[in-house]
Amino acid sequence: MNAPSPRPNERLVHLALGDRAYDILIGPGLIARAGGEFISRLKGRRAAIITDENVGARYLSPLMDSLQTDGVEAVSLTLPVGEKTKSFDNLAAVTDMVLSARIERNDAVIALGGGVIGDLAGFAAGIVRRGVRFVQIPTSLLAQVDSSVGGKTGINTRHGKNLLGVFHQPDLVLADTAVLDSLSPREFRAGYAEIVKYGLIDKPYFFHWLERHWKQVFEGGPERIEAIAVSCQAKADVVVEDERETGRRALLNLGHTFGHALEAATAYDSSRLVHGEGVAIGMVLAHRFSARLNLASPDDAARVAAHLSEVGLPTEMWDIPGELPPTEILMEAIAQDKKVKGGKLTFILTRGIGQSFVADEVPASEVMAFLEGMRNQ
Amino acid sequence: MNAPSPRPNERLVHLALGDRAYDILIGPGLIARAGGEFISRLKGRRAAIITDENVGARYLSPLMDSLQTDGVEAVSLTLPVGEKTKSFDNLAAVTDMVLSARIERNDAVIALGGGVIGDLAGFAAGIVRRGVRFVQIPTSLLAQVDSSVGGKTGINTRHGKNLLGVFHQPDLVLADTAVLDSLSPREFRAGYAEIVKYGLIDKPYFFHWLERHWKQVFEGGPERIEAIAVSCQAKADVVVEDERETGRRALLNLGHTFGHALEAATAYDSSRLVHGEGVAIGMVLAHRFSARLNLASPDDAARVAAHLSEVGLPTEMWDIPGELPPTEILMEAIAQDKKVKGGKLTFILTRGIGQSFVADEVPASEVMAFLEGMRNQ
Repeated sequence: MNAPSPRPNERLVHLALGDRAYDILIGPGLIARAGGEFISRLKGRRAAIITDENVGARYLSPLMDSLQTDGVEAVSLTLPVGEKTKSFDNLAAVTDMVLSARIERNDAVIALGGGVIGDLAGFAAGIVRRGVRFVQIPTSLLAQVDSSVGGKTGINTRHGKNLLGVFHQPDLVLADTAVLDSLSPREFRAGYAEIVKYGLIDKPYFFHWLERHWKQVFEGGPERIEAIAVSCQAKADVVVEDERETGRRALLNLGHTFGHALEAATAYDSSRLVHGEGVAIGMVLAHRFSARLNLASPDDAARVAAHLSEVGLPTEMWDIPGELPPTEILMEAIAQDKKVKGGKLTFILTRGIGQSFVADEVPASEVMAFLEGMRNQ
Repeated sequence: MNAPSPRPNERLVHLALGDRAYDILIGPGLIARAGGEFISRLKGRRAAIITDENVGARYLSPLMDSLQTDGVEAVSLTLPVGEKTKSFDNLAAVTDMVLSARIERNDAVIALGGGVIGDLAGFAAGIVRRGVRFVQIPTSLLAQVDSSVGGKTGINTRHGKNLLGVFHQPDLVLADTAVLDSLSPREFRAGYAEIVKYGLIDKPYFFHWLERHWKQVFEGGPERIEAIAVSCQAKADVVVEDERETGRRALLNLGHTFGHALEAATAYDSSRLVHGEGVAIGMVLAHRFSARLNLASPDDAARVAAHLSEVGLPTEMWDIPGELPPTEILMEAIAQDKKVKGGKLTFILTRGIGQSFVADEVPASEVMAFLEGMRNQ
């Protein structure tokens, strides 16, 4: 009935997580094939789809059709667009809907959307009956290369972002690359920043490839699928080695400590800064800070900034529209980040392009002096 | 400073769950020693205590004193007594309190109470920052021998009991046997039913020992500690073998399918039936049903009923005060139980005392005819 996956124009990344192993399929048209992939990989025949208003308007109906054609009974819940959707109230609404749909352990919750929907739906899947099956259909580039892989789920609270959640690995990820054509250039660029990150962590050759091929990645075609597959494989390798982030997985936070602080400093106002843009600026800062500590050459920081700038991403704090709060407030945001142990700061630093490492006990005073210098250049 | 644990009059049960391994300490006076055990086993120095009004009135202050003496900064939240406390609203309240207390990954949530508090606090500990440390101080016999061991946590929803939750193993369990003296005889008996269950699953010698020593177990002293330790070890053995209940752990449900149905049929009205009483009747029914299927001798069922009856537990459906709903309604409650796969019923049956096994595909018609016969004897 169904051709074996992956098909010739697709890529498959396997996460070898023992009894939680799963596949990521990457290629165009996977939403229209979701039913076939579902029944060939999952035992259950029921699904509860969680989506948002934008994505749902385009893709819910083809997804439902595909599931129905292959005999999967599906119901859906459409939520508002935006970060505020990751709330305790919506967690209650989603779990109630999933239980009403009589989803049992072998049935699945399907997240059809970006990181917000994936994080919320994955959290719900992780707590209904202490864990039901979970399928990710990420529709943003950021979700395809980052949040849909690795099992982190969560919601926001008044105390901060992602402070409640579970580790709950999906059973299948379908990254339909055709849907990326409908993203705005700014959304695409924000996801691209995370692709660059994988090169900067430990794949210098991938960063060099991106410098040469980024236009094709933005335009679509085989290079886009290749870039997404390399990114998923890179994240998969780290997750398999360190599923619950006790060590190496922290490398994925390259650029994120500064980035999160800037997001907090702009009150998560996406008209000023989105996550990927914060990461872009954060990665440049991480390379410059490493140069300041005499760990890396300033040329590497310049090369990173040049590439990110070429694709249209912000690279400087002053690229963010509007006023930034004083450096003390930025430092507070950094200190409140989860990557703080006993008052000391943990940072991802680098010895050059593709040579990142986890640095414990970075003095807060150094970070503060560096930030103060950066914004007043 | 602190004498090594366990002390001479104590018992220690170790759960060898790899990087989630932990100890259960069993003995009198452990609440007064909680601070010392905390700091010798956990890295963090903060704790958020969750308790209920009854237990908190007696034991919160000695627990806080002990933690403070050993340098652990503790805050507390006291919730109403009863099953209704296991709600989504209280999960929100507890997680908010834990985040306000700035509990980080190495700090702990402490559950001081029975199964309700343990299930709720454990769930909160499992989702704050995707998992912080968790200490169980069970104060009911039922919680000491059952719910505090094994990592199941959860809350109730309008769809049923424990339908939302996570597996989150504690890092330490302190079963203070002195607190059991303040339990009502009915509460103690309800916990004792679960102790008998471990004998009936696969320890015939333990059942025989209980037949001879139950009075000392009820009165306190070394036999009580012994019975609790054997029970914790029995549960620990099953949990280590099958942490996430994919196979053998289902044996722990002996008596629970019938028991849960009776609890549902009495609308969880504890004046009519508490969990342990439902399990007592359920275990007798499971043995009789096995005899009806020619798997076991009717003499074994009679012997189980005789022992449970001797200690003062109900053993027959008509022991439950008030009217029971029709058998069809009981069957519906059984079918809604989680242990149903694709419409077929999974039951724990037995070949005799201490010879239980998981039986798949038990015909619902057999169960119904059996139940109909039992209530009309």
